[in-house]
Amino acid sequence: MSGTTDIRMKGFRDRSTVSEALEAALDGIAPLPAESVSVTTAAGRVLAHDVVSTVNVPAFRRSMMDGYAVRAEDTYGATDYNPIPLKVVGSSMPGTVPDERVTHGSCVMIVTGAPIPEGADAVLMVENTSGSGTHIEATAPVPVGRNVGRVGEDVASDDAVLASGRFLLPQDVGLLSSIGHDPVEVVRRPIVRIIVSGDELLPPGSSPVDTKIVDSNSPMLAALVDRDGGIPEIVRLPDNEGAMEEALARPGSDVIVTAGAASVGSEDRVPVLVDRLGSLVVHGITMRPSAPTGIGLINGSRIIILPGNPVSCLAAYDFFAGPVVRSLGGRSPKWPYLTIELPLARRITSQIGRTDYARVIIEDGLVDPVAISGSSVLSSVTGASGFVVIPSALEGYPEGTEVTVHCYHGDCGL
Amino acid sequence: MSGTTDIRMKGFRDRSTVSEALEAALDGIAPLPAESVSVTTAAGRVLAHDVVSTVNVPAFRRSMMDGYAVRAEDTYGATDYNPIPLKVVGSSMPGTVPDERVTHGSCVMIVTGAPIPEGADAVLMVENTSGSGTHIEATAPVPVGRNVGRVGEDVASDDAVLASGRFLLPQDVGLLSSIGHDPVEVVRRPIVRIIVSGDELLPPGSSPVDTKIVDSNSPMLAALVDRDGGIPEIVRLPDNEGAMEEALARPGSDVIVTAGAASVGSEDRVPVLVDRLGSLVVHGITMRPSAPTGIGLINGSRIIILPGNPVSCLAAYDFFAGPVVRSLGGRSPKWPYLTIELPLARRITSQIGRTDYARVIIEDGLVDPVAISGSSVLSSVTGASGFVVIPSALEGYPEGTEVTVHCYHGDCGL
Repeated sequence: MSGTTDIRMKGFRDRSTVSEALEAALDGIAPLPAESVSVTTAAGRVLAHDVVSTVNVPAFRRSMMDGYAVRAEDTYGATDYNPIPLKVVGSSMPGTVPDERVTHGSCVMIVTGAPIPEGADAVLMVENTSGSGTHIEATAPVPVGRNVGRVGEDVASDDAVLASGRFLLPQDVGLLSSIGHDPVEVVRRPIVRIIVSGDELLPPGSSPVDTKIVDSNSPMLAALVDRDGGIPEIVRLPDNEGAMEEALARPGSDVIVTAGAASVGSEDRVPVLVDRLGSLVVHGITMRPSAPTGIGLINGSRIIILPGNPVSCLAAYDFFAGPVVRSLGGRSPKWPYLTIELPLARRITSQIGRTDYARVIIEDGLVDPVAISGSSVLSSVTGASGFVVIPSALEGYPEGTEVTVHCYHGDCGL
Repeated sequence: MSGTTDIRMKGFRDRSTVSEALEAALDGIAPLPAESVSVTTAAGRVLAHDVVSTVNVPAFRRSMMDGYAVRAEDTYGATDYNPIPLKVVGSSMPGTVPDERVTHGSCVMIVTGAPIPEGADAVLMVENTSGSGTHIEATAPVPVGRNVGRVGEDVASDDAVLASGRFLLPQDVGLLSSIGHDPVEVVRRPIVRIIVSGDELLPPGSSPVDTKIVDSNSPMLAALVDRDGGIPEIVRLPDNEGAMEEALARPGSDVIVTAGAASVGSEDRVPVLVDRLGSLVVHGITMRPSAPTGIGLINGSRIIILPGNPVSCLAAYDFFAGPVVRSLGGRSPKWPYLTIELPLARRITSQIGRTDYARVIIEDGLVDPVAISGSSVLSSVTGASGFVVIPSALEGYPEGTEVTVHCYHGDCGL
């Protein structure tokens, strides 16, 4: 894949714009190959092929009502004052094949969903009859075909049912089950290796001690990958070049995201390793936070080098890794956040030439930017309603501007 | 719980309104008790208690930059033309405890995230220095505190971090991990027993044969329950009263939804059984489809009797069962569908006194009702963009009315 890109490798001093970096991340991307899953586990997956029905549903004429299968003409003229007697010659229950045939003057008791017996061409609702047992009376007429579901009414054989690329809804798996379409060919879920590194990191479940901190990026990234339909696989490493090299070069993943060791400092070996093992296509992006993000390829696996700072890590995941994971899984690369438009309570400042990811809180119908101090800490995103993106062409937005808020949580609670 | 309700039991001829039925379904409902889960699996769960941090994050002063830990006053007056020499007495790496102390005229090389050595009160960015090794020069001044992250900058001990009832986002589990909060107390997921019954039903994975149909409701309902945070448990039964009674009466579920056998016909024994085993609070609702829906209680388990017709089953699930499942799991009872407002391409007709669930297709920015004929078939919902609810007070909507479409799929693809 690295041979197909036109984006030149960039050093940190030759930063890419957000759109250049996203283009590089998605360059030549296509959904992964299909795999077969049971129809009972196919909801939430993406169809890999068009589905054409090979059967009629229903495969038989069925009753849409509880009542009596009749010859419609036998009921013509029936009223409460002119009831027409009919002989009940049997009954039809769902799942059975009725033995009896309906002939002139006879009928078959039938329930909703049961097959219409031969000879009958309508179902008289129970409300339009009187009596019970072996003899009833029709008290209203029923036209031919009334309350009879025709063969193939839901799905006809050879009908194109659902198209390739469809994200399967609960009703879709119901429909696939009803036509006997099992297994279902769906796009394989991308395997996303999450590599976090640092001698300072304790695994989740630990308590922070002295200068050791507990890894917050791997559980956050695993949850993001899961949200986007990928399969997260966590690798936690000390600061060790050999271990990092092995984790980057080892086959078995479709995407690798690394967190930490992404900048240009002495400990920032990941971009160097990516460049050596494959190609480093982007390193350094004109955005805040997440400037040290990198994008590369090793053995066909897309690499997104995320900063170790958790806020930068979250933003860079959402800008670049999320679209890759969703695209490989056959989903839309679009952000999975609802947006709302509301006016700014205070101005937001930015810089021309830089894309900003500004966390905001919505209060009293106004959008309030989270104070810049402390903006690199995770509590700034857990406390925020969502974020506003300030495009690189703008210096920010003045107070009162209607801005688009991407809600972290549902509809921002509104 | 049945003792707390004011809603009288209603026979099928005394139908409830949609809002009465929803009130009955949610009567006295509260989130289930807490259970403990690992912080690494807590995303998407709902917090059962407020979380207060017992630690400072970070627990030490940390560097926010790559550079040199200095005494700020040593750098005052430094410029490119007046570089000030500093002796490098050591280095500080993340996760370590630096041995060296910074004294007048000395500094310690430091990387982002590493602890600030004693004696230092600022970090001079590497860009504002020249030289390397054991002797460098400051080429710009740095004020006290600059590039130093204070103790508790992200989270301070005793900070209220996340509130009870919070739906845990990826960044939330990152934060919980960083403060060593593990395990996490979350609302237990409701166990939802899905009972489908009928001699005509073949299990999913079968092909339809003769008058046997393949169960579409159980995979659809399982996917809906999963969407709503419940744990589905499928029970498929023949038309057998004893088996149905056992499945309704057996403990172990928080909610039971039944599909099929809900009407007043001869085979419709579920409402009768619910009334005998517990209480049938609602039976029959003034809506279309899904009129035969029932609501009851058996041994503290809420029962939602859904119609067997798949479209009615879907609508009744969304109107009554979904809010129950989500509320028990601590989520919002609100519909999990995005809504959009668009004008109607054609009128929709309804009846006063009846709530209608009208499937619609959005085309060219207009909302087109799915033709009524065939409206009971599953392909009418797999082919629809979403649905419009027509309140019982209206006879419908004329062409051109701006209506609210609930999108089955994301934002209706717009």
